[in-house]
Amino acid sequence: MGLNVTQKLIKDHLVSGEMTPGEEIGLKIDQTLTQDATGTMVMLELEAMGLDYAKTEASAQYVDHNLIQVDSKNPDDHLFLQSATKRFGLYYSRPGNGVSHPVHMQRLAKPGKTLLGSDSHTCANGCMGMLAMGAGGIDVAMAIAGEPFYVKMPKVWGVKLTGKMPDWVSAKDVIFELLRRYDVKGAVGRVIEYYGPGLKNLTAMDRHVIANMGAELGATGTVFPSDNVIKRFLKDQNREDDWIELKSDRRAKYDLDEEINLSELEPLVAKPSSPGNVVPVREIEGEPIYQSYVGSSANPGFNDFAIAAEIVKGKQIADGLSFDINPTSRQMLTDLVQEGHIASLLQAGGRLHQAGCNGCIGMGQAPATGRNSLRTTPRNFPGRSGTKEDSVFLCSPETAAASALTGVITDPRSLGIDYPKIKKPKRPTIDVNLLDAPLPVEQAKQVKLYKGPNIASIPEMAKLPDELEVPILLKMGDNISTDEILAGGARVLPFRSNLPEISKFTFEIIDENYYDKGMKSRDYGGHAVVGGFNYGQGSSREHAALAPRYLGLRVALVKDFARIHWQNLVNFGILPLTFVNEVDYETLDHGDMLILTDLKNKLQQGNQFTISIKGKDKKIDVQHALSERQTEIMLKGGLINWVRARQIQAN
Amino acid sequence: MGLNVTQKLIKDHLVSGEMTPGEEIGLKIDQTLTQDATGTMVMLELEAMGLDYAKTEASAQYVDHNLIQVDSKNPDDHLFLQSATKRFGLYYSRPGNGVSHPVHMQRLAKPGKTLLGSDSHTCANGCMGMLAMGAGGIDVAMAIAGEPFYVKMPKVWGVKLTGKMPDWVSAKDVIFELLRRYDVKGAVGRVIEYYGPGLKNLTAMDRHVIANMGAELGATGTVFPSDNVIKRFLKDQNREDDWIELKSDRRAKYDLDEEINLSELEPLVAKPSSPGNVVPVREIEGEPIYQSYVGSSANPGFNDFAIAAEIVKGKQIADGLSFDINPTSRQMLTDLVQEGHIASLLQAGGRLHQAGCNGCIGMGQAPATGRNSLRTTPRNFPGRSGTKEDSVFLCSPETAAASALTGVITDPRSLGIDYPKIKKPKRPTIDVNLLDAPLPVEQAKQVKLYKGPNIASIPEMAKLPDELEVPILLKMGDNISTDEILAGGARVLPFRSNLPEISKFTFEIIDENYYDKGMKSRDYGGHAVVGGFNYGQGSSREHAALAPRYLGLRVALVKDFARIHWQNLVNFGILPLTFVNEVDYETLDHGDMLILTDLKNKLQQGNQFTISIKGKDKKIDVQHALSERQTEIMLKGGLINWVRARQIQAN
Repeated sequence: MGLNVTQKLIKDHLVSGEMTPGEEIGLKIDQTLTQDATGTMVMLELEAMGLDYAKTEASAQYVDHNLIQVDSKNPDDHLFLQSATKRFGLYYSRPGNGVSHPVHMQRLAKPGKTLLGSDSHTCANGCMGMLAMGAGGIDVAMAIAGEPFYVKMPKVWGVKLTGKMPDWVSAKDVIFELLRRYDVKGAVGRVIEYYGPGLKNLTAMDRHVIANMGAELGATGTVFPSDNVIKRFLKDQNREDDWIELKSDRRAKYDLDEEINLSELEPLVAKPSSPGNVVPVREIEGEPIYQSYVGSSANPGFNDFAIAAEIVKGKQIADGLSFDINPTSRQMLTDLVQEGHIASLLQAGGRLHQAGCNGCIGMGQAPATGRNSLRTTPRNFPGRSGTKEDSVFLCSPETAAASALTGVITDPRSLGIDYPKIKKPKRPTIDVNLLDAPLPVEQAKQVKLYKGPNIASIPEMAKLPDELEVPILLKMGDNISTDEILAGGARVLPFRSNLPEISKFTFEIIDENYYDKGMKSRDYGGHAVVGGFNYGQGSSREHAALAPRYLGLRVALVKDFARIHWQNLVNFGILPLTFVNEVDYETLDHGDMLILTDLKNKLQQGNQFTISIKGKDKKIDVQHALSERQTEIMLKGGLINWVRARQIQAN
Repeated sequence: MGLNVTQKLIKDHLVSGEMTPGEEIGLKIDQTLTQDATGTMVMLELEAMGLDYAKTEASAQYVDHNLIQVDSKNPDDHLFLQSATKRFGLYYSRPGNGVSHPVHMQRLAKPGKTLLGSDSHTCANGCMGMLAMGAGGIDVAMAIAGEPFYVKMPKVWGVKLTGKMPDWVSAKDVIFELLRRYDVKGAVGRVIEYYGPGLKNLTAMDRHVIANMGAELGATGTVFPSDNVIKRFLKDQNREDDWIELKSDRRAKYDLDEEINLSELEPLVAKPSSPGNVVPVREIEGEPIYQSYVGSSANPGFNDFAIAAEIVKGKQIADGLSFDINPTSRQMLTDLVQEGHIASLLQAGGRLHQAGCNGCIGMGQAPATGRNSLRTTPRNFPGRSGTKEDSVFLCSPETAAASALTGVITDPRSLGIDYPKIKKPKRPTIDVNLLDAPLPVEQAKQVKLYKGPNIASIPEMAKLPDELEVPILLKMGDNISTDEILAGGARVLPFRSNLPEISKFTFEIIDENYYDKGMKSRDYGGHAVVGGFNYGQGSSREHAALAPRYLGLRVALVKDFARIHWQNLVNFGILPLTFVNEVDYETLDHGDMLILTDLKNKLQQGNQFTISIKGKDKKIDVQHALSERQTEIMLKGGLINWVRARQIQAN
């Protein structure tokens, strides 16, 4: 039987497991990508692991999130990241270079390779015939250290594209169509693979747009074949040698099938406050807007800005409207400048911002209270814009520009003008200076990490003792989210590179004394927490495991776990246990002392054992879901210790 | 006797007083300028005064300070400001248009006119043959309402310019030379007037640079004549009709005389942390820098950016350096884009930011801890960059660009290249859309002020009662600064448009319960504070009077006052008293109840009276320094009430 592109990519990189959907597989990772908001911790993890030099083919550290620099924390992080890239043999993309995903596509992405990134939109580079996946920071650190990435073998969802997009419809509308049909959980456990005769009508950057927002469907990844369109893109980047052809076999099959006729699409918009809340623009025409926002990883291409520029050229945006232009890479911005598009956008009233993620991740450009914001960004989750109870609509650049002129949500077809034809830049810029190349290994070994006052190394973490006697510091109910465990936002985010400092915010919403109690517990062997169903739901932030671990958390005993947080607990050596009998939850009280004995044997020999409660005549049956590999990680005190042991062995 | 330009401008606008240096004069104000950080309160003051329509020839509200928008407060302020300009008949310059001073110069500045602005660098437009002065917000509100501006008649300091600047020396070095000679208090009580044969070698924008930093010498204003250079500038802006010639009479004299031979200047730099700390660049060459920063009101011209672009063109900035490019107006940015300079800056590694004040006022772009920052901005006061214990050097664009290439402070002459010749834009942009024109008066009257949740009208303020019985809530020592009365910074600034909210920070450094006690005191006739020498030193922020007044402060009794804070107390109806016998300070205790009787008569009839202390067998002699006009203001409960009464009379 023939293989599809996804299966070929997986087969080429398989180091463990069977290619049966749902089974855990281990994949060799060729390239990694980190951004600054997650990258500082990744670099600290590499330091804690004792890594000597990156073992991947190419690993790049981008600075695109924390660009505002209201005080010294952000620039201190930048300098730290730069020193870490020199130390560990990584590429470094300095602030101002732009968003990781398009820059990676321009300079490093290669057909046939795997890419793991500590950013959920890493999947965007699936446009290049890569298997590109987002993951937690420590997973990426592990990949840099040469370890495989473990993931459940996805189902491959074949989406056949036919036809050609009409005028005023663009790539964003293609992925909106899939979101309209299947909503935000529509591709969980799947890789979305595009194929069919419609492909030839999509540029590499169109495919980037579509691949990027696969994340919004919950996909494990998005995969496009590597064809002549990709060859031309690489040629334009002076990297034709990096091209290989990669297409599915003639008789390839998909686990699931879907079809989109591009010719039948119309301009779509995602209403507040979910990317899956998609309707045709025409259905909500006339809704007044405060802001029209162009840019972000979801529309990062030259054409995305050029089309907006052509639409507003020679006109003025609506009175009082904020028309925010967010370039996505230095290289593309230079082209836009040289082709006259930036001048058109400025003269129409646009606000030109620094190249980077910016307002897309709530770093500035928040809308006014109670006003609608229309954005080409990938997400409109409540409050993500920085404004509480915001009202953010997602759309294509065409719709954003048309609406900027009218001040109300506008189907661009109703402007009554010809669809602008965008000329390719006459002499496209190739900015080879976008990325500082890795130092050779011998030079790298001489580099010292530069740590400003806000950067703290990850402290040593003890291995799991064979006996634990730990008090329950918190007894919580159902659906505790990682936001309750450790908040995000402008108050907490600047401490992402400082575990001792960020730990002070741990569980503060639930118990403001948790930090003090936790710190105290560290002198007596740590502590436990108890929870209900769906414990650790929400964001994937690994700090929600790392921070409690730093404060002495050794055991989390709950009714059940949210998947990613469970993984993070394992990664950082916190024993995740569930009740065999859920009624036992009632038996436990805040302050009870849990006694766990002979742990090594018990974890290795089965999935179920018994713990006792000091001073209570009651034993509780608990279970764990650790694989053999994960048990080993747990006993070592977490992934950092586990991989450090392997690094030492290897040297 | 002939008059100099400053004397002509003053004579033309004199409405009260004698032109004797040191005497209070009243001046008619033709134009005003407000920026957003001070303008929100100005607009609220106009509302509280009951203004119907601006009485100036042109008043413009710029949005250039609070552009980051991390939440809804900034954009809510922008919408409020826009609605207020529509309501009161002002020009509105939207976010993204750029810094007030260069935009005002391009679109509104007129030779022969007076300009009052709620920004200390308002003096920059003195380059246009105007008398341009910075002032407190309510002074500007008064001017918009048609009231004269009262100021002490300045001495006129004639600075004769001869010669021509050598290559690699530019306008910034001229004002640095004056700062080198006279330091930051060198022009207090003076207007600096430039004249002489060297003038013809200075462009209008060169003069802007020199006039702008007159503020750093403490000058009341800076004045240049209006000559053919200004005529050409206005012609380029399509405003030739706004030109008049304005020069000093042949036999004009100055109160003080100075001379600068431009030919003898060399590149200069102001070391941390004062603009007066000036030395030749060559003396500190080689000092490593983290950041090179181009832009701000101190170097806002096309040439300032173009020269930097030509210096770095085709080269790469130093490894790890942050090269921050801050355009100053939409119009100039468009020219820089069209002439290829922005592309040169980007390709060399520059970070292109939004047009605005940005890092110059600590809104982003803070340097890393312990690293040097080299900036073309006007000020390097400690911490102003956003980074505590920063190390900021000020310089010309030539020095900034040369140092960006080397990574160390570099005298641009040592680059060993020819001094680039900058071509004027072939077709200079004239962005008439930079400013939204005022609405006609009848339309304006229909406009409702738009107030987001962070915008609170100024509450009614009661007139001064004839009898006061007020407790002393604070007894303080010497040198209490306005930072201690009401802090600035990112935590407090977003509440500048919200008196009830910002009041919560009042005196918090001295007594964290002051807010609660003050609020309580309002029900019982208010309270008093007692202080030592130099009370209210530091920043001119009027919120340091307005907030305590809101909390019930009626009397400030101290040994002596800092000048501007004294004025602010008067403006907001807080009675500023000093001890006749300083030893009486010792008699008073926290909690003492001061009794003031028959206040109207006492204030009107003399400068000295007696107050008693409840329950103590002691009377205290106090004095005030209020003029007749100020006494009237005080009795009415402050300027807002005073001018409202006049508005009502006039209508």
